[in-house]
Amino acid sequence: MTSTWLFPAADEDARQAILRAAYDALCEHGYADLSTQHIADASSKSKSLIYHHYDDKDDLLLDLLDHLLDRFQQETRVDAEDPREHVEAVLDAVLAVDLPPERRAFTRAMVSLRAQAAYDDAYREHFQRHDAVVRDGLRDAVEAGRRTGAFRDVDPDRVASFVVTAIGGAMTARVTGDEDAVPAVREELQRYVEACLVAA
Amino acid sequence: MTSTWLFPAADEDARQAILRAAYDALCEHGYADLSTQHIADASSKSKSLIYHHYDDKDDLLLDLLDHLLDRFQQETRVDAEDPREHVEAVLDAVLAVDLPPERRAFTRAMVSLRAQAAYDDAYREHFQRHDAVVRDGLRDAVEAGRRTGAFRDVDPDRVASFVVTAIGGAMTARVTGDEDAVPAVREELQRYVEACLVAA
Repeated sequence: MTSTWLFPAADEDARQAILRAAYDALCEHGYADLSTQHIADASSKSKSLIYHHYDDKDDLLLDLLDHLLDRFQQETRVDAEDPREHVEAVLDAVLAVDLPPERRAFTRAMVSLRAQAAYDDAYREHFQRHDAVVRDGLRDAVEAGRRTGAFRDVDPDRVASFVVTAIGGAMTARVTGDEDAVPAVREELQRYVEACLVAA
Repeated sequence: MTSTWLFPAADEDARQAILRAAYDALCEHGYADLSTQHIADASSKSKSLIYHHYDDKDDLLLDLLDHLLDRFQQETRVDAEDPREHVEAVLDAVLAVDLPPERRAFTRAMVSLRAQAAYDDAYREHFQRHDAVVRDGLRDAVEAGRRTGAFRDVDPDRVASFVVTAIGGAMTARVTGDEDAVPAVREELQRYVEACLVAA
């Protein structure tokens, strides 16, 4: 499970080692069935050392969530100059049809943690902060395209929110039983970009 | 929490009473924090009576999930003759901006259970069966619209999969911190229907 893009091996300190073990245990068990013992079992650290660094399981998992979202943002960052290229590069980055196993494990872990945001404000705030970064990047690209006339006179916030939400749905579908949803969303969002976004 | 559309009060037998208690406990705690004791606490039934009816917590929750998905399908069933009316009625049924509190509680519970489908085949199969019903209804409407010439020459399976996935994303966003996603998805799917689906 352990992915070098999520956890670079060099210079790992105790906190990094605990986070990596927590991630491995999360990937294996999912949030609902995850215990601190699972995390200790996945690492060379004792439960008491884990509790030296973190108040409880959720304190640790929220720190892990921040780390994972930061790494994922860096991994999927898009810096295209052209607004349309930017939008399509975002779609390509997150809606790849053949996802490497480690990205698939990551997606499962994220779906599992995101569900907790329905019941726990702390998880909700972490995801909101991350979603805003992705959405703002898309919104800025749409706004830029509108300014140059490459895009229609659309509502950039609304378009960005729609695209991010559809992508989130596809990520959930991918790991909860509807693998075909991913190419369908990629293709239909392409048609949406061409018919609803790009200027005639 | 208890909703008459989910649990009609009349003629409730022991199984129905347990399902209703399980639903109330699920709405309050979410899947990850739900115990059989919570379910017993929410009902007039003992844990031993619950275990008389169900092997374990997941056996009970899978029966609840089937019940909830059946009821939700009936509640949101659309039978429009006109293909475009059908598609838009589905969007209206599930993407209401002001969701009654009981529908919101239902959505939270569903997001919580769906996350379990990322780790548990039984949950995955239940959701797949339900998703197929919604998707097939949309696909048939798109196919009908294509046949009559009301819709463009689109791929009905792909369109249906896309719309269902975007709706799923909006339902998750609604309860995990991005309430604005719901009207954005409703509006942009409307633009998609008009520009990508309806014949020019």
